[in-house]
Amino acid sequence: MQKLVLLRHGQSVWNQENRFTGWTDVDLSEQGRQEATHAGQLLRQHGYGFDIGFTSVLKRAIKTLDIALEEMDLLWIPVQKSWRLNERFYGALQGLNKAETSAKYGAEQVLRWRRDPHELPPALTRDDPRFPGHEARYQHLTARELPLTENLRQTMARVLPFWTEQIMSAIRSNQRVLVCAHGNSLRALVQYIDHLTDTEVAALNIPTGVPLVYELDDDLNRLRHYYLE
Amino acid sequence: MQKLVLLRHGQSVWNQENRFTGWTDVDLSEQGRQEATHAGQLLRQHGYGFDIGFTSVLKRAIKTLDIALEEMDLLWIPVQKSWRLNERFYGALQGLNKAETSAKYGAEQVLRWRRDPHELPPALTRDDPRFPGHEARYQHLTARELPLTENLRQTMARVLPFWTEQIMSAIRSNQRVLVCAHGNSLRALVQYIDHLTDTEVAALNIPTGVPLVYELDDDLNRLRHYYLE
Repeated sequence: MQKLVLLRHGQSVWNQENRFTGWTDVDLSEQGRQEATHAGQLLRQHGYGFDIGFTSVLKRAIKTLDIALEEMDLLWIPVQKSWRLNERFYGALQGLNKAETSAKYGAEQVLRWRRDPHELPPALTRDDPRFPGHEARYQHLTARELPLTENLRQTMARVLPFWTEQIMSAIRSNQRVLVCAHGNSLRALVQYIDHLTDTEVAALNIPTGVPLVYELDDDLNRLRHYYLE
Repeated sequence: MQKLVLLRHGQSVWNQENRFTGWTDVDLSEQGRQEATHAGQLLRQHGYGFDIGFTSVLKRAIKTLDIALEEMDLLWIPVQKSWRLNERFYGALQGLNKAETSAKYGAEQVLRWRRDPHELPPALTRDDPRFPGHEARYQHLTARELPLTENLRQTMARVLPFWTEQIMSAIRSNQRVLVCAHGNSLRALVQYIDHLTDTEVAALNIPTGVPLVYELDDDLNRLRHYYLE
């Protein structure tokens, strides 16, 4: 039996301000840092150790992982960062306040954008300053990989190659893995691992800063999962 | 012309207490964190960017690198950690106060231990709690690689494979490299790059938290070097 731990980053400054974040590289709030510390303490108290960490290229996830690893005295383990674990790309909604967006488009539409795995938010244009093609950290991505908007299915499609090629391969070589990522990149991953229907994943919300433990069999099928508390 | 930047970690708690540190995993002091912040600000102000970071498996170097990268908004670049960049292993002196050690062995002997590239500090035994073979982070090292004591020549011998195989190969593939390491692993590296004699390296002291820039030609020979200020 192998264990895998998923961790959603602690609260960010924009979670606090109720704004759509996506790939915008906002920092953790003070509460977010505390959540990360608490997650690391919980893992340490339950005797968890890790051989490798995986995270996105966004600082709220990188810092959550670093803070948690430091609590476990594991800052020295290798950490691999990939854009494929980034939050879902929220298109032209990035930066907008969720309440204001509800007032403009209606609460029902906003709920669909947030929860329906097939619903695409309004797309960015390539000349928008928010387009990731302008950033050095995404320069190695192909034109097709650079998103203008993303629904949860598309998030899943770009997370899965990283899951199979990097994370599963680490687990298969008996490494104990900690993945620190985002609300929607983790929902996409959980939908895949747990074979959830679109209706089931629409109802799924992974809390920030609470370690989600998966116990996997030798074929990496899920035996059970639970939150550490 | 390629640039390479070397950075010695900021002051640690044991630098402050004047104790021999070696592979003991002591944290940065408050002053050390400020030095790391300042180094990152200097690099940013001078327009430096980096594609990859290298550091040791000791938290004072890892955190110095993280703090400096955060100041440059580069937390997202890949970072590779290796025991080969660790501080020189100080054997049975690790943890001892430098003034007390001088009182016991004489200031001249302590100076030889610190500066003579051939002088070996008293060795640890394998049952000493300070022996790195007891730690998970060194479990992949062979018995020969696990040190009981180390002079600067031996530090250089284990730094160089990492220099040639990882760091030089990153530079050759046009990556801009930041190496954050330790007083003696950097002295060993500089002795090699700059072809210093033992007498010259004995006099060399690299200050904490001050970026040391190397300009290299296409064969990675040094053109010039200077501290950023």
